[in-house]
Amino acid sequence: MSVTAAAGFRAAGVAAGVKSSGGPDVALVVNDGPLDAAAAVFTSNRAKANPVLWSQQAIAGGSARAVILNSGGANCFTGAFGFQTTHQTAERVAERLGIGAIDVQVCSTGLIGVGDEAFRAAVLHGVDLAADALAAGDEAGLAAAEAIMTTDSKPKQAVAAGDGFTVGGMAKGAGMLAPGLATMLVVLTTDAEADADVLDRALRAATRTTFDRLDSDGCMSTNDTVLLLASGAAGVRPDEAALTAAVTAVCDGLARQLHGDAEGATHDIAIEVRHAASEDDAVVVARSVARSNLFKAAIFGNDPNWGRVLAAIGTTDAAFDPYAVDVHFNGVRVCHAGEPDRPREEVDLAPRATSIVIDLFAGDESATVRTNDLTHDYVHENSAYAS
Amino acid sequence: MSVTAAAGFRAAGVAAGVKSSGGPDVALVVNDGPLDAAAAVFTSNRAKANPVLWSQQAIAGGSARAVILNSGGANCFTGAFGFQTTHQTAERVAERLGIGAIDVQVCSTGLIGVGDEAFRAAVLHGVDLAADALAAGDEAGLAAAEAIMTTDSKPKQAVAAGDGFTVGGMAKGAGMLAPGLATMLVVLTTDAEADADVLDRALRAATRTTFDRLDSDGCMSTNDTVLLLASGAAGVRPDEAALTAAVTAVCDGLARQLHGDAEGATHDIAIEVRHAASEDDAVVVARSVARSNLFKAAIFGNDPNWGRVLAAIGTTDAAFDPYAVDVHFNGVRVCHAGEPDRPREEVDLAPRATSIVIDLFAGDESATVRTNDLTHDYVHENSAYAS
Repeated sequence: MSVTAAAGFRAAGVAAGVKSSGGPDVALVVNDGPLDAAAAVFTSNRAKANPVLWSQQAIAGGSARAVILNSGGANCFTGAFGFQTTHQTAERVAERLGIGAIDVQVCSTGLIGVGDEAFRAAVLHGVDLAADALAAGDEAGLAAAEAIMTTDSKPKQAVAAGDGFTVGGMAKGAGMLAPGLATMLVVLTTDAEADADVLDRALRAATRTTFDRLDSDGCMSTNDTVLLLASGAAGVRPDEAALTAAVTAVCDGLARQLHGDAEGATHDIAIEVRHAASEDDAVVVARSVARSNLFKAAIFGNDPNWGRVLAAIGTTDAAFDPYAVDVHFNGVRVCHAGEPDRPREEVDLAPRATSIVIDLFAGDESATVRTNDLTHDYVHENSAYAS
Repeated sequence: MSVTAAAGFRAAGVAAGVKSSGGPDVALVVNDGPLDAAAAVFTSNRAKANPVLWSQQAIAGGSARAVILNSGGANCFTGAFGFQTTHQTAERVAERLGIGAIDVQVCSTGLIGVGDEAFRAAVLHGVDLAADALAAGDEAGLAAAEAIMTTDSKPKQAVAAGDGFTVGGMAKGAGMLAPGLATMLVVLTTDAEADADVLDRALRAATRTTFDRLDSDGCMSTNDTVLLLASGAAGVRPDEAALTAAVTAVCDGLARQLHGDAEGATHDIAIEVRHAASEDDAVVVARSVARSNLFKAAIFGNDPNWGRVLAAIGTTDAAFDPYAVDVHFNGVRVCHAGEPDRPREEVDLAPRATSIVIDLFAGDESATVRTNDLTHDYVHENSAYAS
């Protein structure tokens, strides 16, 4: 049900000593073909980790045979030594699999600044262990998904069945979940036949409405990578719409799991903006609320504080009249036409799933951005992470 | 030492029952002239409270005779009734002082959506009490500064002496402190002679480098107002530079008090960006760090997590090379040329005053943005405020 659900893929997850905890920390995913088409989306942060700098170049030709991933260190801002580590990692994988280093995507996650001699040695050791452990099937896929976890409380996997083909995937990410991409590593696999340009369009269409609308804490990572590999092993070439739908389904499933596992959260908040003049406007308005610490703290306190919603959306330049909007908390319209409506006592914010609907009365477009509340545990986890 | 420090001004602060606590909640500041020149800066939030909508129009002619302020309710998103309340408040002040309603600036602070019949009655009662209590001198200025407090732990006042003239002021604000303006009400007074256009330029120059660079929690208020009133009672007409310097000194003093009183904060963080290609770039880069919850939580945990600084500044489009920057925490260079430098153990983040210096090596401009850490108490205060 994971990265190994599609035919033509093997995976492994091993404990190689990158993490001081001794837990699993290196994963390998291999595409046995016959195709090797691939597409990727990387963080839009200008501060990119060494594995991102490597992988962007390596995938420029639209193909990839393997993905090596480690948790326990981001290998970001580690200089020339860190880039050499990434390069050596790709070469070690290539050597073990009999492919070229250019065919290897590298992903890292963990603390920025971590990437010394000990890190390099552990990751290279992990390549050997993972190459030995490669296998098809659910168990291997799960092992890979577990090896990329950092503060994640559980592994994240999803699968979608198309007409004669399968798309599967795994993801990690629990904090620094923000725009462009949430802080995440995602590997998607399919046994469909598809060219790189089709994969690229399908992947960008899917991430645009899923991961790009997950905004847990407004912080964009240096290491975000979403990969899509096609083996063609199913012998089926779906039309682009069908492939895009399946990829989107898997991305949506993984995005929801990331949303539900955000660090320290007690509410999973869906902010839906209706009747916007454009889809961009809807996203901008929803994101302004997702970025409001005051709003997010209010939700933690089960407080239907619609004033903080209006204060947030008023900071955008989207086309709407701030004095004409409706705001619903969990189905109760607490603000109508910019004035108080139903009493706050009618709103029950106890459930984890939280629905905010903002009706702009400005057009026909809509969008939903997902975020989490701002909690004591968020502060605790993120003030203690490095120590 | 306050809003009454300059000659020609009287003030009052009274308890009128707007706040359920029974504390002081209505303040009045009166300019007895001979001049009535005035300037203002209001929130750039499109969601503006009724008093802001009123005051923007009333001050368009460049004059004001009085400022009435209340805590205990923002009178924002309270519809036509709320606007009438503001109008009636101005008229009551005008009637009591024998001036026109157009000469009265109105400011409110507190919860959005609060502005019902009881609110109106209490504020109007407060006008009568305050008009009766008007007095010159420090005691009256302090009473006014206390009456505008919400979650502020202490009143905020400042004064600057020019050559033959004085500028004084009071402020409130402890949360929702953000761009454009921190959530604040500020009344500045001077006995200098000055025309409205000079006051306007002086005020905008002063706020640009003080309140506009205070970004406690990234949340912009609906009620922010900064007023500058000139009585001319000193009989001195300073040159514009001297007036601007004095106004800036008072704004800086008040901004530092707001910074030090931010809700739940345990660190007052000054983020200084050096060697930027432009002043705008320096502000954008500093603000990106001030807005990072991950960075702010790390400071709460006394963690010199420079990786989160680099991840934040990488999201900007300012002109610099992310792999060439230096980052200093409290004087210790923990990152040099985008790589780890001095060990984290050398950094002592125990003091409340926290200095972050980011050297971009991209030009000759610099700027400092002030923010606070993200703490358990911030979450607590902002999840419980309404209840």
